Amino acid sequence: MKTDIEIAQQATIVPIKDIAAKMALTEADFDYYGKYKAKLTYDKIESLQQEPDGKIILVTAINPTAAGEGKSTVTVGLGDALNRLGKKTMIALREPSLGPTMGIKGGATGGGYAQALPMEDINLHFTGDLHAITTANNALAALLDNHLQQGNELHIDQRRVVWKRAVDLNDRALRQVVIGLGGPFQGVPRQDGFDITVASEVMAVLCLATDLQDLKKRLSRMVIAYNVEKKPVTVGDLGVEGALTLLLKDALRPNLVQTLEQTPALVHGGPFANIAHGCNSIMATKTAAKLADYVVTEAGFGADLGAEKFLNIKARSGNLKPAAVVIVATIRALKMHGGVGKDELNQENIQALENGLANIKKHVETIEAFGLPYVVGINRFTADTEAEIAALQKWCETHDIPVALTEVWEKGGEGGLDLAEKVLQVIEEKENQFHYLYDDADTIDEKIRTIVEKVYGGASVEFSSQAEKQLQQFHALGWGSLPVCMAKTQYSLSDDPKRLGRPEGFTIHVRELKPKLGAGFIVALTGDVMTMPGLPKVPAANKMDVDEHGNAVGLF
Amino acid sequence: MKTDIEIAQQATIVPIKDIAAKMALTEADFDYYGKYKAKLTYDKIESLQQEPDGKIILVTAINPTAAGEGKSTVTVGLGDALNRLGKKTMIALREPSLGPTMGIKGGATGGGYAQALPMEDINLHFTGDLHAITTANNALAALLDNHLQQGNELHIDQRRVVWKRAVDLNDRALRQVVIGLGGPFQGVPRQDGFDITVASEVMAVLCLATDLQDLKKRLSRMVIAYNVEKKPVTVGDLGVEGALTLLLKDALRPNLVQTLEQTPALVHGGPFANIAHGCNSIMATKTAAKLADYVVTEAGFGADLGAEKFLNIKARSGNLKPAAVVIVATIRALKMHGGVGKDELNQENIQALENGLANIKKHVETIEAFGLPYVVGINRFTADTEAEIAALQKWCETHDIPVALTEVWEKGGEGGLDLAEKVLQVIEEKENQFHYLYDDADTIDEKIRTIVEKVYGGASVEFSSQAEKQLQQFHALGWGSLPVCMAKTQYSLSDDPKRLGRPEGFTIHVRELKPKLGAGFIVALTGDVMTMPGLPKVPAANKMDVDEHGNAVGLF
Repeated sequence: MKTDIEIAQQATIVPIKDIAAKMALTEADFDYYGKYKAKLTYDKIESLQQEPDGKIILVTAINPTAAGEGKSTVTVGLGDALNRLGKKTMIALREPSLGPTMGIKGGATGGGYAQALPMEDINLHFTGDLHAITTANNALAALLDNHLQQGNELHIDQRRVVWKRAVDLNDRALRQVVIGLGGPFQGVPRQDGFDITVASEVMAVLCLATDLQDLKKRLSRMVIAYNVEKKPVTVGDLGVEGALTLLLKDALRPNLVQTLEQTPALVHGGPFANIAHGCNSIMATKTAAKLADYVVTEAGFGADLGAEKFLNIKARSGNLKPAAVVIVATIRALKMHGGVGKDELNQENIQALENGLANIKKHVETIEAFGLPYVVGINRFTADTEAEIAALQKWCETHDIPVALTEVWEKGGEGGLDLAEKVLQVIEEKENQFHYLYDDADTIDEKIRTIVEKVYGGASVEFSSQAEKQLQQFHALGWGSLPVCMAKTQYSLSDDPKRLGRPEGFTIHVRELKPKLGAGFIVALTGDVMTMPGLPKVPAANKMDVDEHGNAVGLF
Repeated sequence: MKTDIEIAQQATIVPIKDIAAKMALTEADFDYYGKYKAKLTYDKIESLQQEPDGKIILVTAINPTAAGEGKSTVTVGLGDALNRLGKKTMIALREPSLGPTMGIKGGATGGGYAQALPMEDINLHFTGDLHAITTANNALAALLDNHLQQGNELHIDQRRVVWKRAVDLNDRALRQVVIGLGGPFQGVPRQDGFDITVASEVMAVLCLATDLQDLKKRLSRMVIAYNVEKKPVTVGDLGVEGALTLLLKDALRPNLVQTLEQTPALVHGGPFANIAHGCNSIMATKTAAKLADYVVTEAGFGADLGAEKFLNIKARSGNLKPAAVVIVATIRALKMHGGVGKDELNQENIQALENGLANIKKHVETIEAFGLPYVVGINRFTADTEAEIAALQKWCETHDIPVALTEVWEKGGEGGLDLAEKVLQVIEEKENQFHYLYDDADTIDEKIRTIVEKVYGGASVEFSSQAEKQLQQFHALGWGSLPVCMAKTQYSLSDDPKRLGRPEGFTIHVRELKPKLGAGFIVALTGDVMTMPGLPKVPAANKMDVDEHGNAVGLF
């Protein structure tokens, strides 16, 4: 069996201008980044504004397990399948972060015969967007610490600096640090910490900005500290929003690539859905919708995280209305939710599967609560038995849940035809009553309670004393009307990663709130979730190499 | 008077394929990075190995002052002038670092009518090389700290980790930090620090590597720590040289751009010459020499730093033999060396000029000591008076020093014709007896003494007790045959930045030695020189912005 990178390296990849031509884009409409990657120009994006909008199909999933779900794989395969059905389709994915790539997860460009290409470029530095974000984030930190050092005219309380530094790596030793040591010429000593770049507010700002001017306004609003009077200090107060915008001016332009079946794909923006809002950029999604009749896009992790944030935050910010949702599930992951260990997944186990169905049921209810048509997509793995698949299909039929088996990993777009047809059918036949789950006018705690009750299926919310104080403070500062971006483990509907399946009666523990005024939301940190991952004992990096022809080895 | 960025933005820039065509490069030989930047392919570089080598002209300078010398400007203008004289010429420059760009220095692509284009891209993220270097550097740090956290099989002494993290920014608050705080799940607490990326060993490795396999070997040799038995631990011991090579596989490919007069330029590698070896990459210099008959390249700061390292380190490592050297001087800077303050530079002051000539005299003697033909290039500024220029020219003639006035800032290549002719003349007429100033077999302290005496004109070297111990240790470890990379202030021939002109009888204080086995040299830190700069009270970033068309504002 070939590995993903072998399939990718042996694939026929065509010059990006040929992919662009499928969407009537000429060489004047983009800049090359190598032969197979391009960035669209602002002029072209602006010129598309009068075009009608294509239909947006959002791909989400059940709660992920160590068994893998293949959401990106299904997203790519569904796009390829829609094109096979003669529908003019584009894909809109997120950019991978080097942290997980070098850590444990591997790449994020799909798998098998449903991949985005050039796989190794996208999984490494790509067009440099994440590096530009890291740089803007850290330039701001350096400028802030320099302000402290050079007289501190803004009277920033050095104990109340909230802006953190960032690296696009899994580096747990940087979670909590002390900087500015060494005496009066080496800065002002203070506690600091690093987040992974994809969790940074600059990443969220880039993903939610609608153009360069909006980007600048959002950057200007970012809260970086509080002054000695406990008033917020913003980037605008520091006067460096222009420099940060300059650093991000190319990163904001969506990146065009292709799938193995030469479906055009915009891969742009890459926040994690557990600790950030988890969706690709509004610029990319909207541009894809202008260029194509159908856009297949994904939101990270399960529907409790990425999809909730897509629908409550990104859709609100970008005025987007999805046409349908695909909920990806695998037999293997459902069996894990049903209590089977990772080592026993290759054995048929109908009982475990049926026990695990509660997890998918919750996500179906969530999408129904948003008023959206949906299809459950079963992402077939080789070890799945006919009896298991039949049991899942039967359960879906019993509950009147539209379902399709996909074999895109093995067969590419051909393996996604059934899913594509079902998706087109629900778009056609089912009523779309899309609405947000909470109103802007709800208080921050009301919004959190709504998400916990309607999306997670939890019983209650407990705020730490710090979070209680912050609720009061944030409302007093007039930030109460912002949506909430929940930071929660992806493994469970609850905030305890060990509670698989469909836990009930649980409490969500909000330990801290963070104002992200540039992104336009309030982050609520729950449970023990961390904004900087660590590396495993044997990182994926240990297997990576370059062969004598300069090709990547050990990326997967 | 137009600013540099106005001149750059109003210039006629041609598609990079037309520039490539001048060197007989086709679209198969490079990858586009936008319309005006390209990276050469490894295949093409390899195919050039049988071609004869062009002549290398090294541009250096007197000790820089706040008044500016314009070494990059002269490098670009000289290349343009040689092309005007019908000589097939390429330029090989270093990539700018964002630290100084956002701090005080501004861009590093020349000035006036002698600039490399696209100026704003090169000065911002360019093709991402520096970001790849930062990422490789910090991925290694994360992998090392993860090794400590996950059982420390290599028995690394956490107090003796020598690998530092890096950012490509001026961020003094990161010079001395403590990481790994927060308890047993957040890493192993230890002292750490950040260098600016351009001072990192990864940057040096990239600039000295001759191909991808050599890069990997060098990365593997880098010393990252000592174990509990005080034995060195390398990247190879950690087993991650493959992953680092993968992260750098595109960064090692030279970048092709153009000057305002459409001279092809390879801009690649960007170490600082005060705290690193300060030359562009061997890959770029050698490739340019294969493609062109003349290559004009620069080494950073004064001849005591960049040129010394070009000639003792880079030339040795890459087996290069320069044909001639240009020593750039300005009337203004010589007056500063002669005792005039920055505010009085616009007034004619022959006496101060004559006092300052001692500085240029020392650098002339240095280049003579290396056995190389040279020309002094006077980089004319508008406030220079005829009497001042005549005095400088007369002094050169009296001392039999070849000299040429250049007006490339104002007139482009046309303003460099006299210098170009003089350079061609010394190549033709003068004897080239190029030799290194010390032998591999000399001890580390002998090498340092040689540099101090023959290049700086100092009287003695004082080693701190730490440096004394390190000398013994490094010789015992068999590292004594490596060349030495001096880290010293650029402002003075001594290690005291306030001693301008030509100080004599001074002692150089070596406070610490650092093994850089991947780069293949030993760094000697002298005086108070720091490997992470700070930002000024009002950073250049405060003036930067993007206009409504997405163009850079405030880059200079």
